[in-house]
Amino acid sequence: MNAEIINIGDELLIGQVVNTNASWLASEMNKAGISVVQITTIADDDYAIKAALDQASERAQIIIISGGLGPTRDDITKKSLAEYFNSEMIFDEGTFENVKKIFSLRHYEVTEVNKMQALIPEKCIPLQNNNGTAPGMWFEKDDKVFVSLPGVPYELKSLFSDEVIVRLAKRYKLGAVVHKTIMTTGVGESFLAAKIKDWEDNLPPYVKLAYLPQPGLVRLRLSAKGPDKQALENELQQLTEALKQYVPEVIYGYDDMSLEEAIGNLLKEKGKTIATAESCTGGYIAHLITSIAGSSDYYKGSIISYSNEVKMNLLGVSSASLEEYGAVSQDVVEQMATGARERLKTDYAMATSGIAGPDGGTEEKPVGTTWIALAGPNGVISQRFHFGEHRGRNIRRSALVALNMLRMELIK
Amino acid sequence: MNAEIINIGDELLIGQVVNTNASWLASEMNKAGISVVQITTIADDDYAIKAALDQASERAQIIIISGGLGPTRDDITKKSLAEYFNSEMIFDEGTFENVKKIFSLRHYEVTEVNKMQALIPEKCIPLQNNNGTAPGMWFEKDDKVFVSLPGVPYELKSLFSDEVIVRLAKRYKLGAVVHKTIMTTGVGESFLAAKIKDWEDNLPPYVKLAYLPQPGLVRLRLSAKGPDKQALENELQQLTEALKQYVPEVIYGYDDMSLEEAIGNLLKEKGKTIATAESCTGGYIAHLITSIAGSSDYYKGSIISYSNEVKMNLLGVSSASLEEYGAVSQDVVEQMATGARERLKTDYAMATSGIAGPDGGTEEKPVGTTWIALAGPNGVISQRFHFGEHRGRNIRRSALVALNMLRMELIK
Repeated sequence: MNAEIINIGDELLIGQVVNTNASWLASEMNKAGISVVQITTIADDDYAIKAALDQASERAQIIIISGGLGPTRDDITKKSLAEYFNSEMIFDEGTFENVKKIFSLRHYEVTEVNKMQALIPEKCIPLQNNNGTAPGMWFEKDDKVFVSLPGVPYELKSLFSDEVIVRLAKRYKLGAVVHKTIMTTGVGESFLAAKIKDWEDNLPPYVKLAYLPQPGLVRLRLSAKGPDKQALENELQQLTEALKQYVPEVIYGYDDMSLEEAIGNLLKEKGKTIATAESCTGGYIAHLITSIAGSSDYYKGSIISYSNEVKMNLLGVSSASLEEYGAVSQDVVEQMATGARERLKTDYAMATSGIAGPDGGTEEKPVGTTWIALAGPNGVISQRFHFGEHRGRNIRRSALVALNMLRMELIK
Repeated sequence: MNAEIINIGDELLIGQVVNTNASWLASEMNKAGISVVQITTIADDDYAIKAALDQASERAQIIIISGGLGPTRDDITKKSLAEYFNSEMIFDEGTFENVKKIFSLRHYEVTEVNKMQALIPEKCIPLQNNNGTAPGMWFEKDDKVFVSLPGVPYELKSLFSDEVIVRLAKRYKLGAVVHKTIMTTGVGESFLAAKIKDWEDNLPPYVKLAYLPQPGLVRLRLSAKGPDKQALENELQQLTEALKQYVPEVIYGYDDMSLEEAIGNLLKEKGKTIATAESCTGGYIAHLITSIAGSSDYYKGSIISYSNEVKMNLLGVSSASLEEYGAVSQDVVEQMATGARERLKTDYAMATSGIAGPDGGTEEKPVGTTWIALAGPNGVISQRFHFGEHRGRNIRRSALVALNMLRMELIK
């Protein structure tokens, strides 16, 4: 089954907006077993829209159109679609009910302009939008399906997931496709591939594996295709269990869970609390931890000690250690971790001290040198890393390694 | 002058990679006065490539192709282009020199596979790639220009900026286009538009203004087009000066400077230091400040006080205030700011205390309620804000408002 995505919007052609709708739609269709053969981005222009529809229907059976449905843009897409399908515009009561519902939730009056949103081509099935006033529209012609969706990402996503993909699966009797994403950290892509080679070589032919690396993480996505959804789910579950035997310590979660969320769950489960003492990461670890809702259950706070003075006064690092070994050293980072643990009265405390760059490197301690420590009930551990030249990536990778050090301790 | 962008790559069609190359190229061409009429994304497939080239050359004079040039992909783009332009493949010494240069920089041996990168269609002008082994290729046919670029973003960007746009400007005698981006904060888009209406209404016809809003910021981009570059630059400089009369306090910088960078410059200029005491922002302000290289000159550190205990023990907030007014209150946030300023011995300290959500809201203090304070040599100021429901946006907006409060104090 082939599909084409047509994104309509001047803002995409002037480069003001990155086309994340296209990659999201492509990924969702791919997961459902639909191949996207082309993504076409065009202007809010009647001629361009009709030409793109003509060409797309030569390449694909399913054409997903997004954008150009807002009330401020003269509804260019809706008008072009009505003409393309030789369809009258009618006033649709169901759509108007939805417009009224959306406006009453926002405590706005429905104006004449808004009422126009309920005018739709007679030949379409409207797909009601729970998050906005512009409906999705489903057309069929010559055994092909054309679906028009609003361009606002969260409206597009919920309409596609709740309505479009369900109808497509039914319409084209798509087989079941099941996915499972396994989140790993602590081992790079090629080293991970070597470790799980035997497992990968023995995957059944209807199960595909994709390596999706990100800085500090590797996602493993399993996709299985077949007639029986439940059987596929069971199969992926068993394969995941089998994978754990190969790399038990590397897997921290599933289905795009972040490392900070996984750690939050572990801390809640064990009833433990955490603090951080950050130098080179400058608050980024604290930010990751507190980006998780409910983190106040286990996170008490942090001391960000960018200057040596703060390391001494607020964390109790000894001036002798700072003088003898420098701020980026095992002695100092361990004192930072134990200092934070004592002062913030937590079970664990992580500390980082490194040279994030671009300046401040020396022959002995080049940019990217980072010491990371973890203090806990059983004492303090620490390790030195070398991450590279790029300030932003050094901060990100230091934070993930620190979080993973805590995770390894918690799962011991 | 019309252009079309063709992006080649299976990874784009399965949604694994977001097409940032397209928006970057579109934005660069737009700035140079070239209109992008379509962006087409296709598979690594010979038939699709040739069909896309045919269709694109009916819509545009300039066709920019990216992707499919790596050594591991059988050079599908290069082969298809050679056939499309009826061109033999030849071994290009200049390209081979570049391959050898790149490999010697990386201390790698040049293999036979790498040597193949120097095979290019005879009818193209090779554009040497300073960042990789795959050259750009410039073809001309029927007064149209076709340029093929590698898909790796930093290779594509440097080749496009250093070679392609320069040659296009010459080839099509593009007039000068000059841009200036004015960074504003503290006033929303529509309110800003009302304030600068007279200035905007009097812009000369060859100067265009675009509002580019982001959460907490509005960028104003001026674009001027004409024959004389120096005259345009002077004109934009004068217009910018004139704009300052309308909204002197709202403009914090130019050309995509971040607010944290602007504040860093102000602090360095005035020789002042800063600390933060963060509750609801959880280290995000510290992270923004320390993402700027050289921030250790003015930033000493922070106390992230997520628990009341830490607010009392490390910042000296009184337990009476916490009991009487709660953590999200004017009393507490002011004590946090003065506490951080004293303990970290800085000229200024910012503090935040709010309900980031999604839980923790009450009738009186709904999710999004945030108190922000700034302590300085002249005492402490504070203000209450209400940002909304979304945790991530609450954190981001609280941080920007706090940074802007400091900026307003520094420019007084």
